[in-house]
Amino acid sequence: MLARRNPQLNRHGELIHLLSVEGLPKAVLTQILDTAGTFLSVNDREVKKVPLLRGKSVFNLFFENSTRTRTTFEIAAKRLSADVLNLDIARSSTAKGETLLDTIANLSAMHADMFVVRHAESGAPHLIAQHCAPHVHVINAGDGRHAHPTQGLLDAYTIRHYKRDLTQLVVAVVGDIVHSRVARSDIHALATLGVPEIRAVGPKTLVPGDLAPMGVRVCHDMAEGVRDADVIVMLRLQNERMSGAMLPSAAEFHRHYGLTPEKLALARPDAIVMHPGPINRGVEIDTPVADGAQSVILPQVTFGIAVRMAVMSIIAGNVA
Amino acid sequence: MLARRNPQLNRHGELIHLLSVEGLPKAVLTQILDTAGTFLSVNDREVKKVPLLRGKSVFNLFFENSTRTRTTFEIAAKRLSADVLNLDIARSSTAKGETLLDTIANLSAMHADMFVVRHAESGAPHLIAQHCAPHVHVINAGDGRHAHPTQGLLDAYTIRHYKRDLTQLVVAVVGDIVHSRVARSDIHALATLGVPEIRAVGPKTLVPGDLAPMGVRVCHDMAEGVRDADVIVMLRLQNERMSGAMLPSAAEFHRHYGLTPEKLALARPDAIVMHPGPINRGVEIDTPVADGAQSVILPQVTFGIAVRMAVMSIIAGNVA
Amino acid sequence: MLARRNPQLNRHGELIHLLSVEGLPKAVLTQILDTAGTFLSVNDREVKKVPLLRGKSVFNLFFENSTRTRTTFEIAAKRLSADVLNLDIARSSTAKGETLLDTIANLSAMHADMFVVRHAESGAPHLIAQHCAPHVHVINAGDGRHAHPTQGLLDAYTIRHYKRDLTQLVVAVVGDIVHSRVARSDIHALATLGVPEIRAVGPKTLVPGDLAPMGVRVCHDMAEGVRDADVIVMLRLQNERMSGAMLPSAAEFHRHYGLTPEKLALARPDAIVMHPGPINRGVEIDTPVADGAQSVILPQVTFGIAVRMAVMSIIAGNVA
Repeated sequence: MLARRNPQLNRHGELIHLLSVEGLPKAVLTQILDTAGTFLSVNDREVKKVPLLRGKSVFNLFFENSTRTRTTFEIAAKRLSADVLNLDIARSSTAKGETLLDTIANLSAMHADMFVVRHAESGAPHLIAQHCAPHVHVINAGDGRHAHPTQGLLDAYTIRHYKRDLTQLVVAVVGDIVHSRVARSDIHALATLGVPEIRAVGPKTLVPGDLAPMGVRVCHDMAEGVRDADVIVMLRLQNERMSGAMLPSAAEFHRHYGLTPEKLALARPDAIVMHPGPINRGVEIDTPVADGAQSVILPQVTFGIAVRMAVMSIIAGNVA
Repeated sequence: MLARRNPQLNRHGELIHLLSVEGLPKAVLTQILDTAGTFLSVNDREVKKVPLLRGKSVFNLFFENSTRTRTTFEIAAKRLSADVLNLDIARSSTAKGETLLDTIANLSAMHADMFVVRHAESGAPHLIAQHCAPHVHVINAGDGRHAHPTQGLLDAYTIRHYKRDLTQLVVAVVGDIVHSRVARSDIHALATLGVPEIRAVGPKTLVPGDLAPMGVRVCHDMAEGVRDADVIVMLRLQNERMSGAMLPSAAEFHRHYGLTPEKLALARPDAIVMHPGPINRGVEIDTPVADGAQSVILPQVTFGIAVRMAVMSIIAGNVA
Repeated sequence: MLARRNPQLNRHGELIHLLSVEGLPKAVLTQILDTAGTFLSVNDREVKKVPLLRGKSVFNLFFENSTRTRTTFEIAAKRLSADVLNLDIARSSTAKGETLLDTIANLSAMHADMFVVRHAESGAPHLIAQHCAPHVHVINAGDGRHAHPTQGLLDAYTIRHYKRDLTQLVVAVVGDIVHSRVARSDIHALATLGVPEIRAVGPKTLVPGDLAPMGVRVCHDMAEGVRDADVIVMLRLQNERMSGAMLPSAAEFHRHYGLTPEKLALARPDAIVMHPGPINRGVEIDTPVADGAQSVILPQVTFGIAVRMAVMSIIAGNVA
């Protein structure tokens, strides 16, 4: 069987789309994190703009609403001097019965340079990347339960920023692993970058037992999961799932898996606490932890802008 | 009776508003198409921006929602370096009982330079142009059943691009002519530019019999309508009208007037197929035709950006 | 008791937030009005942009929808060359249960430079200013019944523009004083700038009797209220309050307090008529008055852009 080329890379192995962290070589991830480092200083400058994407048209295609994630991409694009077009896609042509691919073909014909796609269906950004014009680059901003690669990369950036060497770390990802595209992208990014021990922590209903092939250790006991961890990534508990059969209640989840100061004390004393936001205080994380000295939740947001600028500038420079 | 001056032209005969193709002299239409040609190359450049509208404020006033059309104007304005303000007018002051003219007077007082107006009522852009401050230019982005002049102009551009000489052509416009502002603007543009035979094709309920004064030949039979045509413009069948008394059903329409490969074969072998989008596959047009070698539906979108840039830059340069 | 510093001023007495006109020294108000004057000419230029906020990120946080006010701030920021991010906050994270302060902390972490806040709760912009990062500046764009400081300032600008000397004037503010943040900000601005007689005019249900401490004269009789006034500020009658116990009906209000040509004739012959918009023709103001020679309602809108540019550029230049 002939190996199919990763659709995210051109024939020189350069990044042309960002669809998933899975399958990307370590060198590409490292390039993104290194480039993000150079953009961090841009965001601290008096004039926070660089002309790398001047005259480029970036389309935010949010088939699923997410003001916060859209905003991070819009800021990143504007700081690169791109023109940003926000399409309220839920109210537009798709509502008139146009197919996804016809919408994409039309926008491509407007000389779009980049699509940032959020979609409830896993694989939609992949489909778009396969069918759009060769001059268009696609960034997955979250698709179904599949992937949220910029979140995975910004989490990797954050860990590298605080811990420097990733090859000695224990990272615990806690919560609703089974439904979480963030968890999936985090695990792929950290495994590729050489983190030796990644733990998936949560109840049996939310943590699948078959994660060993991904090199992940499953812990259904929270104390076991966070003990001696260097990094704890708390996932957001989706309200809409709390009332289902998956979970007894938010209070029950908090009792077993919510990150309290007591549970955090089981981790290494210099452990950092992360969360993709928005946080549910008192559910998956307690306020003293979220606002405490070990929390790096807000730096994650700052690094997220730099990582998105890095991804955009890298793919815009590579030709399909 | 004294002739009233066309409100779209200043006393030197220069374009200051674009409200309707009807009544515009051929020289003005030709100037727009020629200017659009120069902008096509801008859209292919690495940096797709020219500073012609730098510092100008373009307001998108969409009283009727249309993400796609708004996006094309927003891109065009941004590529001309204008500042673009999108007003979600349905949720704003008009909802608070303010009159249309008070809204316009207020926005003019903010030193607006251009209003791009989409409105469900025929004549609304005209009314706005008559009452707004003299420094403001108005572009009609579609009003009721009346006109959609930039669509008419981009269709003319597309035909000229592929056929060069318009004075020997047979153009068939097929579908719901009676409700279509696109058809009306197409017919005016093509007649003014010298197309000798324009056919309006569709059922008696959708094609009025009195188009002869416009120089249009009415065909209720599809085979007769498309036979030996150089250009076929398929109109979008509005879903909301399919259930009414106007039409038996979408399937019935497709059987008689839907553009299948068989019906297309009746036209000239080098005929081009156009559609304003979004298309209803399997209703007014079959997939093999929409995606086939004779389809120029996506180039229409590309030309549409250049035509809108042309209109904006021309009217911004002329003084009322 | 130690005096608490005004949170809008840094320790040098320079403006770092604009939360309320109340408590701001006359010198700061005068600086804003003088700076606005210099920006008026920018809005008349061919290229209406100055680079004062280039590379800055201004976030419009409208927890309460107001297309018109948001647009004025967006234009002001763009004419200062800032990047503007519009957050449709009602549909975003707050809807997911995130607290206001967590939302603000997140946006600050994206290196926001300025928040323009409209909120239904009085005091929300204050709370945000107290908790946001030191590099972020907050402008109140209207909070509950509390304050609408840029409206107060633009009204002061308008009066100064037409009357020059404020220290000899009689200004009548007419309508629903008790619910009006505009009235409150107007009264504070004019009192600070030295207007000797400010009258609050309206029925007992809408004009509180205890305004004497603010130096305001209460008039429940319209003739008494507008007699010999130099300036009449008509407030918008909120439709939603007309049906309540506060008011018998819109017609009843119009009969007693609506500004007709007859009532206007009681004021000084050179009196100007103002209104924050949008106006209810035939309710609080008659059409011949709104469109008449004494009306300065549209110049208010023009001055409003310049005043907002002034506030933004002043606070952006001052360090907390």
